[in-house]
Amino acid sequence: MNRASASKTAAGRFFEDFRVGETIRHATPRTLGGGDASLYSALYGMRFAPQSAETFARAIGYPTSPIDDLLAFHVVFGKTVPDVSLNAIANLGYADCRFLRPVYPGDTLSSVSEVIGLKENSNRQSGVVYVRSRGFNQRDEAVLDYVRWVMVRKRDPDAPAPEAKVPKLPEAVAAADLGSACPPTNRAGFDGALSGSPYRFEDYAVGERIDHVDGVTVEEAEHMIATRLYQNTAKVHFNQHSEGQGRFGRRLIYGGHVISLARALSFNGLANAFHIAAINGGRHVAPLFAGDTVFAWSEIVATAALPERSDVGALRVRTIATKNRPCADFPLRQGEGYEPSIVLDLDYWALAPRQP
Amino acid sequence: MNRASASKTAAGRFFEDFRVGETIRHATPRTLGGGDASLYSALYGMRFAPQSAETFARAIGYPTSPIDDLLAFHVVFGKTVPDVSLNAIANLGYADCRFLRPVYPGDTLSSVSEVIGLKENSNRQSGVVYVRSRGFNQRDEAVLDYVRWVMVRKRDPDAPAPEAKVPKLPEAVAAADLGSACPPTNRAGFDGALSGSPYRFEDYAVGERIDHVDGVTVEEAEHMIATRLYQNTAKVHFNQHSEGQGRFGRRLIYGGHVISLARALSFNGLANAFHIAAINGGRHVAPLFAGDTVFAWSEIVATAALPERSDVGALRVRTIATKNRPCADFPLRQGEGYEPSIVLDLDYWALAPRQP
Amino acid sequence: MNRASASKTAAGRFFEDFRVGETIRHATPRTLGGGDASLYSALYGMRFAPQSAETFARAIGYPTSPIDDLLAFHVVFGKTVPDVSLNAIANLGYADCRFLRPVYPGDTLSSVSEVIGLKENSNRQSGVVYVRSRGFNQRDEAVLDYVRWVMVRKRDPDAPAPEAKVPKLPEAVAAADLGSACPPTNRAGFDGALSGSPYRFEDYAVGERIDHVDGVTVEEAEHMIATRLYQNTAKVHFNQHSEGQGRFGRRLIYGGHVISLARALSFNGLANAFHIAAINGGRHVAPLFAGDTVFAWSEIVATAALPERSDVGALRVRTIATKNRPCADFPLRQGEGYEPSIVLDLDYWALAPRQP
Repeated sequence: MNRASASKTAAGRFFEDFRVGETIRHATPRTLGGGDASLYSALYGMRFAPQSAETFARAIGYPTSPIDDLLAFHVVFGKTVPDVSLNAIANLGYADCRFLRPVYPGDTLSSVSEVIGLKENSNRQSGVVYVRSRGFNQRDEAVLDYVRWVMVRKRDPDAPAPEAKVPKLPEAVAAADLGSACPPTNRAGFDGALSGSPYRFEDYAVGERIDHVDGVTVEEAEHMIATRLYQNTAKVHFNQHSEGQGRFGRRLIYGGHVISLARALSFNGLANAFHIAAINGGRHVAPLFAGDTVFAWSEIVATAALPERSDVGALRVRTIATKNRPCADFPLRQGEGYEPSIVLDLDYWALAPRQP
Repeated sequence: MNRASASKTAAGRFFEDFRVGETIRHATPRTLGGGDASLYSALYGMRFAPQSAETFARAIGYPTSPIDDLLAFHVVFGKTVPDVSLNAIANLGYADCRFLRPVYPGDTLSSVSEVIGLKENSNRQSGVVYVRSRGFNQRDEAVLDYVRWVMVRKRDPDAPAPEAKVPKLPEAVAAADLGSACPPTNRAGFDGALSGSPYRFEDYAVGERIDHVDGVTVEEAEHMIATRLYQNTAKVHFNQHSEGQGRFGRRLIYGGHVISLARALSFNGLANAFHIAAINGGRHVAPLFAGDTVFAWSEIVATAALPERSDVGALRVRTIATKNRPCADFPLRQGEGYEPSIVLDLDYWALAPRQP
Repeated sequence: MNRASASKTAAGRFFEDFRVGETIRHATPRTLGGGDASLYSALYGMRFAPQSAETFARAIGYPTSPIDDLLAFHVVFGKTVPDVSLNAIANLGYADCRFLRPVYPGDTLSSVSEVIGLKENSNRQSGVVYVRSRGFNQRDEAVLDYVRWVMVRKRDPDAPAPEAKVPKLPEAVAAADLGSACPPTNRAGFDGALSGSPYRFEDYAVGERIDHVDGVTVEEAEHMIATRLYQNTAKVHFNQHSEGQGRFGRRLIYGGHVISLARALSFNGLANAFHIAAINGGRHVAPLFAGDTVFAWSEIVATAALPERSDVGALRVRTIATKNRPCADFPLRQGEGYEPSIVLDLDYWALAPRQP
């Protein structure tokens, strides 16, 4: 009887259960609607104009307000958790994340992952799994594509190790690969009074640093509601009974929640960077817990014109988020490592309208 | 002046205000939309595929994603509170709850109750009121029908007792009465990779026990947001000022919140049991409070074919939910009573697709 | 570099940055949908029938359920914060707030403010700014119009003071100016069983006091989710890191959250006062913090027929909200000031159906 039940309950894959080249179709597809957009907005306080107002979206070339890029990312990501990272020890990183098509209310997202790399750790207790995950809409069009790698436990340390394969990943998405999720944009329709800023692509300089000023304190109810909205089931976010006995004694906040908090804060200084076209990489430097207050600052790392597009340009932004420490002095390094308040080091491409 | 105000404020009915055979139309009708479905999903982390994805719903025969059965239940139930249980001492139980028609986004639900039994307690301070409550949609079609009984205070202990009448209630809804809220289901369209499980009706055996593994910690903000979503006004859930001076010193979590938490946890093991067709009975064995972590396990109590339906079969499921205690060893009895961590003992019929 | 970033980050206006007669167009427009209405309902537990049920709304003359008046108010108000009150020391009051047109799901709201008064304080550290703010829908029709005044810091105490101008504000909105946001109402279709009360306009007497009985405890997650839903960015509501070092040691709850809580509580006694036609004035007497339990009572201050309308009448209501103190004895004055538990003193006009 217990065996029967064990077989019906998803135990998640262990390291030795993955094969390079294998494709995993994930449960559960999810239709995103206006209700999800409202809740996402209320959880983070997003103010980017195209996502907030249908009128603004239409004025610049969208058929209606798109679903926030990161909401789509979190939903696609969440589906991969039960198959990929239920037995993960750590999320090590992501790379080469490209937003390929806009997602609109009414679209249904599903996720498929391909195992593209495996490398057992020397202690033979675990290994690193590399997957390329893709999000599709109801027309089977890819809307999102990214690589992540996680350290996953082995069920049996004596299980034979597969041949190590580590995929070669780009340090950043090439500018030529950006922009397919952004429709042709009517620069003249981009009203800076309504969007909250007069600054356009050309107004940002490489090396420029922006303190996003504001801080936001996180509550347990908020990050759990958000993480469930994404149908992300990782137990470290929800189960105080087990986490209370764990390493931190607390529920760990989903890293994607921190990314969305930092993105919302970045409005103050980057209001017209309305679309995330790609995430080059992200590092969760330290855990965040309920009660912490998140601050953020950004640096413009690069700027790039897009091929054959005169409407928008790409800003490569590095956003650093801290906990319980304002960022007026742009904290980053301390000795060999990160300044200790830092929780997130995120590298992404955002699109902003060019000058008319 | 005070009398005028007292007359305008709903004080709720006392035991002697109920008459057997009386019909009570409840306020406030409520249109359920996609926003309610999103919020419900985010509060519990529901992952049942037809409710999550319009594409999946259509592939199996629904015109669109139905509103979660328990969301409809809570909304119908919530309306009855101001008239039936504002002066209740305890919710004693429910029975014979049948889901009669699917509820879709845009439907407006209203509730009507009929008093079907009354029995004064021997101490003459209170009595038990039995009501059959029905939920209707905007076409006056019944979508839900259930009996509950509550212990209600008397305004005046000396008020004469009505003749005792205790309705005869079925121990369980008959299999022949199940399924009218489930449209003809295309078994071939029920994609196990997307739904999260390959197991169908025939794969479950009577006596099988399933540990749902995961635990979820409840926060005050979550259960209050949920209970207000249902327009349930029972003050024990919301008012710390009065509850802090009460029996538990804390706000009590709405029993229906516990049922939805257990249902969401049950996805891990019962992913394809996509529709609750009936609730045979439910017992809130102990109160749940914010900060507690809920776990659950289920037993398949019976299985039943449905008359003239080859598409779906019915699983009679008993789900036990605990607080702050994992369920790997299926806690149930201790001595004469329940194992002390148990908060819910729920008996319901769920439908699952048959093998193609 | 720091200068560049400082220039891109909105620092908010200081007292000397305002000019009488100046018009400020605010970011960010916001499309309100069913998801916002659901979330608003779940945050406060609103039960007014036209806003809750499309069927009820249509039966009385609306084309569909309108967006709650206060949700529209909060959204229009929220947009003014970054431009008007980011450097405010205190919100001093509002007046002459008229609801001009109904707002429906799908409408996009934007805000424009005109500076109508300025008066430097005698200490020259700050001054009072009076603005008339208007909310517009996507057809540029005004939906809402109100005056508020705030005390704003000076950047430089030595900056020259403008000529003092204090606008003359009405003590209350005239009855003749009420009702344009309320369509012709079918009194016969106003079903008192569904709306929750048989009492209509004529049933309320001037001087009548109503204890709204119930209390609701507020959580940090709730008021922050609500305030972000309104895209209100005032940092005192969100940043425990800075507020912990401030005057109260805690995050301050947005005054509008208190108004919505009081309005929701007022359903018990004022269920048929379904539309707020105007807010004559509001005073946040004391701050509210998470963990506090809010109670409320109301007095009917005046009643008024509306010109050429026999369908609805206007009740001028004064609602007093308290924290951690039930209102059965209608607390109001103590010595020269307010009874110390009082947090809100609100004066508004609500419409209720007349007798058929």
